[in-house]
Amino acid sequence: MSFERPNIRKMSGYASGEQPSGERAIKLNTNENPYPPSPHISKVVQNFDYSRLNLYPDPDADSFREAASKLHDVHINNIVATRGGDELLRLIVTTFVDPGETIGMTSPTYSLYPVLAEIQDCPVTEIELTENWLIPTHFAEYMNSMNVKLALLVNPHAPSGSFLKANEIDNLARKLNSILVVDEAYVDFVAEGMESSIGLISKHPNLIVLRSLSKGYSLAGIRMGYGVGNEDLMKPIRTKTKDSYNLDQISQMIAELALKDQAYAKKTWVEIRKNREKMELELKAMGFTIPESQANFLLATVPKPYAISAYQLYEKLREREIFVRHFDTPRLKNKIRISVGLPEQNQELINTIDSILATTK
Amino acid sequence: MSFERPNIRKMSGYASGEQPSGERAIKLNTNENPYPPSPHISKVVQNFDYSRLNLYPDPDADSFREAASKLHDVHINNIVATRGGDELLRLIVTTFVDPGETIGMTSPTYSLYPVLAEIQDCPVTEIELTENWLIPTHFAEYMNSMNVKLALLVNPHAPSGSFLKANEIDNLARKLNSILVVDEAYVDFVAEGMESSIGLISKHPNLIVLRSLSKGYSLAGIRMGYGVGNEDLMKPIRTKTKDSYNLDQISQMIAELALKDQAYAKKTWVEIRKNREKMELELKAMGFTIPESQANFLLATVPKPYAISAYQLYEKLREREIFVRHFDTPRLKNKIRISVGLPEQNQELINTIDSILATTK
Repeated sequence: MSFERPNIRKMSGYASGEQPSGERAIKLNTNENPYPPSPHISKVVQNFDYSRLNLYPDPDADSFREAASKLHDVHINNIVATRGGDELLRLIVTTFVDPGETIGMTSPTYSLYPVLAEIQDCPVTEIELTENWLIPTHFAEYMNSMNVKLALLVNPHAPSGSFLKANEIDNLARKLNSILVVDEAYVDFVAEGMESSIGLISKHPNLIVLRSLSKGYSLAGIRMGYGVGNEDLMKPIRTKTKDSYNLDQISQMIAELALKDQAYAKKTWVEIRKNREKMELELKAMGFTIPESQANFLLATVPKPYAISAYQLYEKLREREIFVRHFDTPRLKNKIRISVGLPEQNQELINTIDSILATTK
Repeated sequence: MSFERPNIRKMSGYASGEQPSGERAIKLNTNENPYPPSPHISKVVQNFDYSRLNLYPDPDADSFREAASKLHDVHINNIVATRGGDELLRLIVTTFVDPGETIGMTSPTYSLYPVLAEIQDCPVTEIELTENWLIPTHFAEYMNSMNVKLALLVNPHAPSGSFLKANEIDNLARKLNSILVVDEAYVDFVAEGMESSIGLISKHPNLIVLRSLSKGYSLAGIRMGYGVGNEDLMKPIRTKTKDSYNLDQISQMIAELALKDQAYAKKTWVEIRKNREKMELELKAMGFTIPESQANFLLATVPKPYAISAYQLYEKLREREIFVRHFDTPRLKNKIRISVGLPEQNQELINTIDSILATTK
């Protein structure tokens, strides 16, 4: 006998990237920032008064939201603080999409989105990205014609790294009848001169921008993210649908500190861009095809001359304790997604791929 | 224009107890444990390698679940780790109750339960507790007749502190057609000889026992709890419906340490029982009526001879920076719920109530 709801029974859940425990492992599979977080955090952790952990945390994370609102020049009520970006995505679905209503997304996209739709028992409408991993021009019209209640875009795109500029997001938000979520989990890594869409929230009552501290601030370990949007969208999440005390005392403190140390975070972003360029050049030199990426990962198509599939390459790297990501879908199965690591990690990856390919030509 | 779902639009959300910021405040309103957590935790916090926060935490919290499974002598797959008990409650609803299906509970009960039903768009069936704050004998039959899909019991009961023994839970689980959740958030404070219902999970495929580290382990600040139940109930929560990385690195470590330091936690439970008895005697001496409580709070009915309502008493205490809880419902409005604090806090509460009442007789 199973007590599961029918929609839960038939789904299989989100498959997160492997978390190898070995000390020697080179972990380029879950898009973590390879640099440690701001050194100020260590002081806070070390001087933290643990005896106060008996008290509940601030349910609204006001001090953190205050820091985020200053950073983005918006009102504190335009911010909701969540356990990573993932909790925000779930809460947006819970708050705004009835079971049976349609959720729109691109194909491919962040593989959590369809899982969240399944949990809420919502059908999914997908639209295929162009050859250059961009949204087709009829995106908004198509979503409207399908009566989509919520459209989810990850920008920079995962797993390709392509990027839509703010004026394109502006057009989409204007045309769409639904809520538009722009998931900017990777936006900190875009080239200088490219912009976040947060500046658009005052223009569009249907726009929510998602931010995460997991990648840009090297804090995947504490689970902090936030949403930025019109107060009418943020308030029901903050006051009705989120768990009352969703963020613990320590994570709130660490996240606030990280946001306030922009100078340090920016240094890691500059390094990662540099490392990304170098990795891209070296992979291309070996014959890989790679679209231009504005994120901290590269989507690399295994070159045809080699008698090795992307999955085999993934497996052979894994045997050597180098972890990358492989997605077994028609459009992605001949590719591997590689997170940009430290220079020495990237070099070992390149050398290892080189030696694997040498035996398979 | 509102994008909220109709059920979300009409609900008002869970009202959590006030979190006063003043240093002088005596906080007896949210059932926190007044003692600090295990002193071992401070060492972990101080020696924690913050530079590893760039990595995602273990999505399953295996090391914590291992500790919990040893403590309760169950298999690790009988455990799911969650952000406090509240996340477990939400996940149980999400996983097992379709929108429109009925959720059963007592009246009164933990005020979050009906809020979770509203979010999932589920009707609620309530059954009034007896005069002694116990469930009526026809509880299971009534819930079955109402076709309830999930029955939620908090045991020890909130806000009265009454307690159902394991043999009574055994009977209920056997009779009920639905899942039965026994929310043991306060079970660590029961008198010696009274038992948790965890021992029953191997007998009942429909039983989930909820545990929290917020109260018993003085860790409300880190948000850790867990569910114990048959693997068929735990697995879909762990692998399908919970957010992939729901628990951060630091909370997982602290919670594991706290569970392993049973000797320290037990000392705080003994102290709280002693403080509870003293507070009960002194309030009764002033004329308050109080049911026997197995939790870390007392539900005190304001004595009739005084020309002051429970709400007025709550307000007057609040003006003096002593925070207790008042619920404005027919059965609770002439009562205040007081968390058991440190001896000196309790004494100040008693003295202050005494002086307030002296002016109102």
